Amino acid sequence: MTKRLAAELLGTFWLVLGGCGSAVLAAHVVGADGYQFGIGYMGVALAFGLTVLTGVYAFGHISGGHFNPAVTVGLWAGDRFPLKDVVPYIVAQVVGAIAAGWILFQIASGQAGFAIDSSSAGAFASNGYGALSPQGYSVAAAFLCEVVMTAFFLLVIMGATHGRAPVGFAGIAIGLALTLIHLISIPVTNTSVNPARSTGVALFAGAGAISQLWLFWVAPFLGGLLGGIAYRWLGREDEDVVGNP
Amino acid sequence: MTKRLAAELLGTFWLVLGGCGSAVLAAHVVGADGYQFGIGYMGVALAFGLTVLTGVYAFGHISGGHFNPAVTVGLWAGDRFPLKDVVPYIVAQVVGAIAAGWILFQIASGQAGFAIDSSSAGAFASNGYGALSPQGYSVAAAFLCEVVMTAFFLLVIMGATHGRAPVGFAGIAIGLALTLIHLISIPVTNTSVNPARSTGVALFAGAGAISQLWLFWVAPFLGGLLGGIAYRWLGREDEDVVGNP
Amino acid sequence: MTKRLAAELLGTFWLVLGGCGSAVLAAHVVGADGYQFGIGYMGVALAFGLTVLTGVYAFGHISGGHFNPAVTVGLWAGDRFPLKDVVPYIVAQVVGAIAAGWILFQIASGQAGFAIDSSSAGAFASNGYGALSPQGYSVAAAFLCEVVMTAFFLLVIMGATHGRAPVGFAGIAIGLALTLIHLISIPVTNTSVNPARSTGVALFAGAGAISQLWLFWVAPFLGGLLGGIAYRWLGREDEDVVGNP
Amino acid sequence: MTKRLAAELLGTFWLVLGGCGSAVLAAHVVGADGYQFGIGYMGVALAFGLTVLTGVYAFGHISGGHFNPAVTVGLWAGDRFPLKDVVPYIVAQVVGAIAAGWILFQIASGQAGFAIDSSSAGAFASNGYGALSPQGYSVAAAFLCEVVMTAFFLLVIMGATHGRAPVGFAGIAIGLALTLIHLISIPVTNTSVNPARSTGVALFAGAGAISQLWLFWVAPFLGGLLGGIAYRWLGREDEDVVGNP
Repeated sequence: MTKRLAAELLGTFWLVLGGCGSAVLAAHVVGADGYQFGIGYMGVALAFGLTVLTGVYAFGHISGGHFNPAVTVGLWAGDRFPLKDVVPYIVAQVVGAIAAGWILFQIASGQAGFAIDSSSAGAFASNGYGALSPQGYSVAAAFLCEVVMTAFFLLVIMGATHGRAPVGFAGIAIGLALTLIHLISIPVTNTSVNPARSTGVALFAGAGAISQLWLFWVAPFLGGLLGGIAYRWLGREDEDVVGNP
Repeated sequence: MTKRLAAELLGTFWLVLGGCGSAVLAAHVVGADGYQFGIGYMGVALAFGLTVLTGVYAFGHISGGHFNPAVTVGLWAGDRFPLKDVVPYIVAQVVGAIAAGWILFQIASGQAGFAIDSSSAGAFASNGYGALSPQGYSVAAAFLCEVVMTAFFLLVIMGATHGRAPVGFAGIAIGLALTLIHLISIPVTNTSVNPARSTGVALFAGAGAISQLWLFWVAPFLGGLLGGIAYRWLGREDEDVVGNP
Repeated sequence: MTKRLAAELLGTFWLVLGGCGSAVLAAHVVGADGYQFGIGYMGVALAFGLTVLTGVYAFGHISGGHFNPAVTVGLWAGDRFPLKDVVPYIVAQVVGAIAAGWILFQIASGQAGFAIDSSSAGAFASNGYGALSPQGYSVAAAFLCEVVMTAFFLLVIMGATHGRAPVGFAGIAIGLALTLIHLISIPVTNTSVNPARSTGVALFAGAGAISQLWLFWVAPFLGGLLGGIAYRWLGREDEDVVGNP
Repeated sequence: MTKRLAAELLGTFWLVLGGCGSAVLAAHVVGADGYQFGIGYMGVALAFGLTVLTGVYAFGHISGGHFNPAVTVGLWAGDRFPLKDVVPYIVAQVVGAIAAGWILFQIASGQAGFAIDSSSAGAFASNGYGALSPQGYSVAAAFLCEVVMTAFFLLVIMGATHGRAPVGFAGIAIGLALTLIHLISIPVTNTSVNPARSTGVALFAGAGAISQLWLFWVAPFLGGLLGGIAYRWLGREDEDVVGNP
């Protein structure tokens, strides 16, 4: 179990460092002539997805490659993961996420003039709703969005790792599903679907982000449960299905 | 058949929520300093493709992963899908698309000041031509573009799932074909090639989009038929072919 | 041979329609508020690559998936393609490319105010050097760039289809190699590395593009020969090689 | 050994020509109307990753596809590469990188008005810290960033080529890991994680880049060693691991 937990810790570290790191360091970069060099929401979406894509190929054969408490809970609900391992996995993920937040803070604060304005939406890549939603979405919209996105994330994870799915492609499908989720929902909540990711940066982003952290545990857990349960039914081979496309 | 239809419904839901959702929520986002954070046409193109890429790996082994009435019809024309299943599949797809339009409306309307101007091109990610073409393309150009794009979409689908194509890669090829199609044709029609996708948002976009919906059923169906028939001939192994590259 | 030639024709049609089409229709799109929705050089680079990626999975098992006279010639030089088929393949490719140029013209001219200024660099996605280089690169730089890019394109093609390369991945590697080549060299020549692609749009772009077409036959052919010959030596298993990574 | 060294030389040539070439030629391109056509940091990140993705499929079955002295050293530390081959590999990589810098200089200088301002950050795609960091990051932040990024690069490389990882996908995971690393860290150091890449362009970028070159040998080597050693422990199958996802 030591290596499995180490793999989850490292993978979640990589997810937060890469995803939140690209957002903090590279999303908004302007040249002297006003040229927009930065990677914007699209680059951040790609970065989050690639942390998972690369993490699954690197660590997936050790720990299964969850890197996300909502995934771990969803896979348990979907009958793919034993209950007794749920808490250790989540602890390892949160520790990795906080460590990544700390390292990211060390790098980011190496720039002159670096400061975190905890009253501003998306500060230090934190998640938020209402006044702390990047584009001012309500708490209801944020909650709905996080639930639906996490539910579909679990559907893709359960489907792509199903026994009838082509072997080896799960890392691509799952990683790019996370990219897709960010392409849709960064403006709404800065996109979480992952309580560890939200926690890892909220601790550095300040009081605002911490006060809203509850939503980014509750909604992803709810979505993860829904997705896991739905696919447990959908993937059961008790009727006719057609061949793989 | 229940699970196959559920898979088509969920996959089409994901296609509309992800593709149209990224367009509605994230394509146009400007920071306080004028920085263009939004994902633009390129991000929307990527999002549409990734809905299909991820959907094929998640649901393809259950339903075949059409998520599109024009694909279902084209595969029937190409001798890959039984006639008796065509209508149930299309119904499931349209229901999924409308449900996604409804959920997207719930999320989008959670932003203060949200409104849909149904006289404007691309409102709520709707498809259009003439006055409702994003860049003012004529109905003839729009029709031709949708026919050709759907035809090639079917050629890629039929080819990548051909018995001599490498196993497992179809989801990548098909998903990225949809990305490519959007990279080309968003300015022309906001890109449909999928009557369910057009319908799912037109109902919320208003009278303008609904009045033009006919084209986004007729042209994709025509293109799908052409592509399916063409590959039925092309893929028949009755003469010398060379090895896979 | 009919189907192989049809596959080459369709594949090259798709390459020109998708690659040049994205450039003509979608590279430069500005919203009413000045927002840059267009896909820029990066989107065009992605589109070119995806035409080949999707084309290889769709048609590669029929014709080998060249879609490019320089590739056909390079594979002949690399001992992978018979001399007797070179000319028929090139004819099919050029016919497909011109047909795509014609269809693209029909779509593009459906926009009010459409016009081609044949004295301007990159008109109708044409290739050029000197005064017709997108960013004013000399004929020598353009020639060198096209030779080196085509040579490496062939190295990737020959390597990714080598008997010891992992099976099935060639379409991804080759398609994304073309994306990479465009990411580097669009500013220099608008990127050809493919005489058929250059010809297919030059006929519609006017006298300037046609007068410079010679370079986009000579340089890619030279690069293709160099790459093919180099890999014929490199890929010969007459000494110790290490395992696949 | 000749062909293995030739493959490393060509692969590193491609990495520098493609990655640094896209940065020098295409990152910053503005149209006459102010439209930002260039590929920005995101396009450069994609280009670097695609050089490795394509290079691994093209040359990986010959040399293993390192293209980077820090990778070679890290794989030695991780018990995957023999000590006696380390120096020849590094020499071939540096020669290839310098040759690419030279060719890139020939192409880039074919543009009227081309000049390298060696006192400016990122000149000729060089790496730097402090005054030569693209966004003014301190030497400590730069060092930390390069160490952590290279360490995770090695974790991904060792993991994706592990015996229990799915076969054939390593090129995708490793290439896209390099894209991810650039998405995060271009603003900090212009991203090296590769001493050969830094050296290949520093020689042309002038005194500033050369004087800072030490960091881009020391930090990537340190990171490579850390990553290699960590995965040597992590990947050892001496306890329970779960199945591949």
